[in-house]
Formats: sequence, structure tokens, C-alpha cells
Amino acid sequence: MALSAIKQMEELANSLPDVISLSQGIPSSPSANIIRESVIQEINNNNVDRYSCVAGIMKLRECISLKLNEQGMDYNAEDEIVVTAGAMQAISATIFALTNPGDEIIVLSPTYSYYRRIGKLASVNVKTLVLKESENWKLDIVALQKLVTNKTKLLVICNPNNPTGSVLSQTELQSVGMLAQKCGFVILSDEVYQSFYYGPGKISNISIYKSFKKNIVSIMSLSKDYSLTGWRVGYLYSDKAVVNKILQVHDVLINCAPVVSQYAALAGLIHSEKILSESLTKYAKHRVIMGSLLEKMSEHLEFQWPIGSYYFFPKIKGLLNSVKFCTDLLYNSKLSVVPGSEFGQGGEGHIRLCFGKSEQEITEGMDRLRKYFLYNTYVTI
Amino acid sequence: MALSAIKQMEELANSLPDVISLSQGIPSSPSANIIRESVIQEINNNNVDRYSCVAGIMKLRECISLKLNEQGMDYNAEDEIVVTAGAMQAISATIFALTNPGDEIIVLSPTYSYYRRIGKLASVNVKTLVLKESENWKLDIVALQKLVTNKTKLLVICNPNNPTGSVLSQTELQSVGMLAQKCGFVILSDEVYQSFYYGPGKISNISIYKSFKKNIVSIMSLSKDYSLTGWRVGYLYSDKAVVNKILQVHDVLINCAPVVSQYAALAGLIHSEKILSESLTKYAKHRVIMGSLLEKMSEHLEFQWPIGSYYFFPKIKGLLNSVKFCTDLLYNSKLSVVPGSEFGQGGEGHIRLCFGKSEQEITEGMDRLRKYFLYNTYVTI
Repeated sequence: MALSAIKQMEELANSLPDVISLSQGIPSSPSANIIRESVIQEINNNNVDRYSCVAGIMKLRECISLKLNEQGMDYNAEDEIVVTAGAMQAISATIFALTNPGDEIIVLSPTYSYYRRIGKLASVNVKTLVLKESENWKLDIVALQKLVTNKTKLLVICNPNNPTGSVLSQTELQSVGMLAQKCGFVILSDEVYQSFYYGPGKISNISIYKSFKKNIVSIMSLSKDYSLTGWRVGYLYSDKAVVNKILQVHDVLINCAPVVSQYAALAGLIHSEKILSESLTKYAKHRVIMGSLLEKMSEHLEFQWPIGSYYFFPKIKGLLNSVKFCTDLLYNSKLSVVPGSEFGQGGEGHIRLCFGKSEQEITEGMDRLRKYFLYNTYVTI
Repeated sequence: MALSAIKQMEELANSLPDVISLSQGIPSSPSANIIRESVIQEINNNNVDRYSCVAGIMKLRECISLKLNEQGMDYNAEDEIVVTAGAMQAISATIFALTNPGDEIIVLSPTYSYYRRIGKLASVNVKTLVLKESENWKLDIVALQKLVTNKTKLLVICNPNNPTGSVLSQTELQSVGMLAQKCGFVILSDEVYQSFYYGPGKISNISIYKSFKKNIVSIMSLSKDYSLTGWRVGYLYSDKAVVNKILQVHDVLINCAPVVSQYAALAGLIHSEKILSESLTKYAKHRVIMGSLLEKMSEHLEFQWPIGSYYFFPKIKGLLNSVKFCTDLLYNSKLSVVPGSEFGQGGEGHIRLCFGKSEQEITEGMDRLRKYFLYNTYVTI
């Protein structure tokens, strides 16, 4: 197993001078002052040196429980929420807790490649449900049903989806929930981009959690929407019996999430309204800037506007090998983006562009892409 | 899988009033001011919000490399050191990286139970080498050799050993290294208690690293000796080829260690001489206090003085069920300790007492134990 193309591109970008990186999903803004001030106070008050209990500090779990309650969901702070060292660690713990070697999990394509990587680590068979751009990346419930066997333990969904920016409809969620309940598998719902939603209303798993609580593990992170990638803090919630299984594995993998970061999360969630509305306003603006500039390159690419997340996932016309394209783009034009093949067979021919970066990086990056198309014959790559 | 007896006892202790806990290995002292000041500066300088590269911030790896170099060991900062979210996360990544389901790993008994737990999670067969107190917990190389098969991928040693406090001799290490090289397995050497050494000279794997570098993964943590349990930061080092395999798994499990904690580690290591000499002086004193009080209970228990770590592991005379004993001790005398059976079959009949706690907790704890022996007929338990 090599490092992912996301990491490879980012580390390559960091090693070269004057590169604009729109590859790894790192927000350009620093964390909010209120988070820093609060963390510094907890450090000075001697509250961060010792392990927390395995599930995380109770105050934070209570705050998460309250937030979910405000959204109409009922998850108990005591035994239905676990604070984790970021979403990846939550996903690892969930996959290890709910599968045995030889079991099957289903992942979508294109989607974030780490689900497949963790599945391999857990020695499960990873089956793929390919989504089609021509059908708006819709989840085909009939095709999904055909993939499910009595060995299927998990379906991993990323909602909003990284890299496509598509969001599952209430109807799709409802169908998936019914299938999960009928066939006895769990939906691992990675919702780390949930705050970045540019559609009408709000998204959440509320439409299905009441009927299918035992069949959904929701995973959240504070990395993206609170600019806390380096702090490694996230959380998961599900029904008590499912959470209990995951908690044991979480303990073995890491003991507890870093306590200093748990306090960062607590401060973030307490002030979430202000922090999230600011970041959503910013990303909505960045989305329009990047999308408008991409539209001017319609001779070379086509794309759907993302409904969620902070990525565009344009298809480069005629492109066969996205790794070669991205490598060439990096060395020729000093622009780092992620090859679509990283996200599975459904992603080949595409590139992923992150608009979590600054306006300046986005406009300069799009200018480099435009010039690359002007002066290079990428199609022959 | 239930939570470990260590966690169960600690969480039970926290839920009851007026309990003295000598169970979980949590230092009673706070982290050093110099660490806090340095971390706060890095937070204010915008240096902790973003992911570091997978292996950890380069400055920290360079510092670790330098420290190892001062001890006569040659590990390259670039590709032979990985910063992890504590020792457990390093151990998980190592076991997952170096084994496949159906492979075998060998663990000692008594020893820290999490090696076995992670082994189970990785679906490997965990074989046990039982150490005997009557032989000073010596590692029997002939018995070890008999356990090794062509499926053996790892031997896990904890040196100094938790809970016995015993330290492997240079001769033992040499024999183990030669066996590992001959049979092609790797020694996972958990050295988190290495700074707590009460014997002559210094301990390290220097005696064998030169000959067997490819066969040893050393794992260190800053939790115990720098009072940073809550920060979740540690590191591992080995030969480049081995580290490369572990790095991929580390990436998948957590992306990178929490960056704020990496800076705590950096400050700790820079000021290690002062911090460690203070903590060693303190623990050496605590060891004498606890040991002397235990000697006064020789009618009820027998023990060896630990050479390393911050645990005593007395055998309670005539005791058959250490879980029942510890539960009874907790409810009757409000003293929380860990049942020896937690550490495998070689630990039954013993209890583990941590002297990382404050002097007051230690003396009061020992007084409660003495009174428990006076007024209770534990042997019939």
C-alpha cells in the first residue's frame, strides 16, 4: 500500500517552490480565536494533561447530545456518543468493530479512498457501487441491493460526498435505511462535510434516524468546518449497542481522543453558530468564484456544481489518465490537484479541486489551469 | 470484548466517593510549565491548526533523531521515525502493518493486556510465553524458541515490563535479537517506561540495534515520563523499510498525530534532561515509600522490587481470584488497584499498584491495604 494520491500530491506540492495546492482538503483559515482562548485556559487550569475516559470528556458529549437534540435527534451523552481523534480514527474503529475478516463492506465510487484502505486493513472484501455522473451521482438502490449478501456488514456513504459534492436525497436515505434494516447491515455515514451545504433547507440524517437508529453510525469531524485538521478531533454517534462495540475498539486503538483537542471541540461547538455561518458564507463565495472560472474553461472540462463539501470534481474532456495529467500539471504549471482515479473507477478522467483555500489561491490556481489548457496537449497524455 | 480491567477499575473508582486510585498508570503531576508555555506560543503563532505530514513535524523527528544519536543509535529523521498519537496507536499501526490474519504474534505473560487485544483485532493468533516470578520474570529463550513457527511475525516485549517492573538484560536482548534475525520476525519493543529505571547504568536497545535494526521496532511515549497522558503523543523508530510499511497504516488510522501534542512533545524533548531527572527523582522516592510499606505487609504478600516502570506487582498469599479481591478491596476499603489476571495467566494471584501517584495517595492507599488485610478474610474470596 502506498500513500494516497491526495497525500502524494500534497507532499510533492510542499517540496516544490511556488506551487498552488488545491489538493488536500485543508481550510486556509486559522481556527477561531474563541477556540484558542478557551484551549489555553484549559491548559493553564491543568485540565488537559490526563487521559479522559474512553468515550471522551462528559461536557463535550453532553454538548454534542444537545446539538443533535436541537436538530431533532435523540442520542444519549452517556452511552451513544464517542469522541474520536478525527473522523478517520472513528471510521477505523467502526469498521474494525463491526466486521470480521472475510465479511463484506460496500463503498461508493467515486468516493474518498480511505474507506477502501481501512477495509483492506480489516481484511474484509470491499465491493464497489459505481455512481454515474450522467445520473447526477445518484445512488442506484436496485444496483445496491444486488451487491448485498448475507456477508454484508457495512455500507459506507459520504454525505455530502467527497469528491463529487453530491448530497443524498431524503428518498435515497430512506431506501438505504430500509434495505439496511431488512438485510441487517449498518450504514457508516461519514458526514464531515455536512456544514458545507449550498442547497435549500438543511441536511442531516434526521429523516431516517428514528426508524433506523440501530442501522446508522454517523461520523462527524471538526477538521473542516472549524479549521481544526491538525487537532485530530471528531465524534461518532449511534444506538447504544452499536456504540458499545465501537468503544472497545476505540479504547484499544488510542485510549481516548487528545484531551486538549476535545476542549477545542467543546469551544467550537459552543460557538458553532457564529463560526459555521462565517465559514459557510466564505465557502459559498469561494464556490461561486471557482465555479465561474471553471465555466470559462468549458471547452476543456465539464462539471456539476457541488451541493455540499468544498470540492469541484470536473471531468477533463478526453482524459484517460488523471494521475499523469495531475503530475504534468504540477510540474508544468505549479498547480497541485488530486487525480480522480484516487476515488475509484468512477472517478477516472476527473480531477478534484478544493475551494477551502483562500480566494487568491483559488483565482491564481484557476488561472494556472486555464494557461495549462492553452499551452499543453494534455489529451495525448 | 469488554473494556480492560485497568479501565474498569479506574472508571469504577471515579464513580465512587473518596476512593484512592492506584490503578490506571496516570502520573499525579501536571506537565512542565515549559511545555505549556511552548504549546501556547505555537497555538498563537498559527502552527497547530493544519495536518502535519503523515510522519509528524520534521523539527520533532529531527529532535528525536538527535536524542537517539546521543545514545549511540542512528535513526534518520527523514524516514526512520514516525510520530504517533501515543504508544497504543503506534502499537496498533505496527501490528496491523506487519501481520496478516492467521499470522502469529508472541506476547509475554504477565504483561500489558492491550498487545493481546490489538492482536485479536488484527485477527492474528496470539501465543503466550509465560514468565515465572521464581525466575525473576526472566525471558526463557529456549521456551521462546519453541513457540516460534514460520507464521511468527512479531514478538512483543515491554521493557521495562508493565506490570512486573523487570528489565531485560543485555544477554537476553542479544539472544532475542539473534532469534528474530534467524527466524525472520520483528521485535515490537514497547519502551514507554524506559525513563523510569532504578538500576545501575542506563537501559536502551543500543546493545542490539546495530546488529538487528531491521528486526526491532521501538515504541516510546511521552505520556508517563512527561505527564502527558491526555495529549496522546508518542513515536516509533525502526529501519526505513519497516517504517515505510507502518507509515501507510498510520496514515489510514489517523492521518497524523495531533499537531498541538507534537509541539508539546518537542518542548518536552528539548527540556528532557531537567524534566526527566525531576520525575525520576520523584518516582525513585515513591518507589521506596511504597516498597517499604509493602514490606510491612509481608505476612499477606510477597513481591520483587521493580527495576523499571512505576508499578509494584505483589503476589497476595493464597489468592486465587484477583478480580474478586480487587473488587472487594474497592468497595470495602475504597482503594482501586488492578487485578493481576488482567496481565494474562502469569499474573493471577497478583495485584498491580501504581506509584506514579502522589506521596499522600500512596501512603493513604497502603494504609487502606494494610487495614483491609487486618479486617478481611480475602483468602476465602
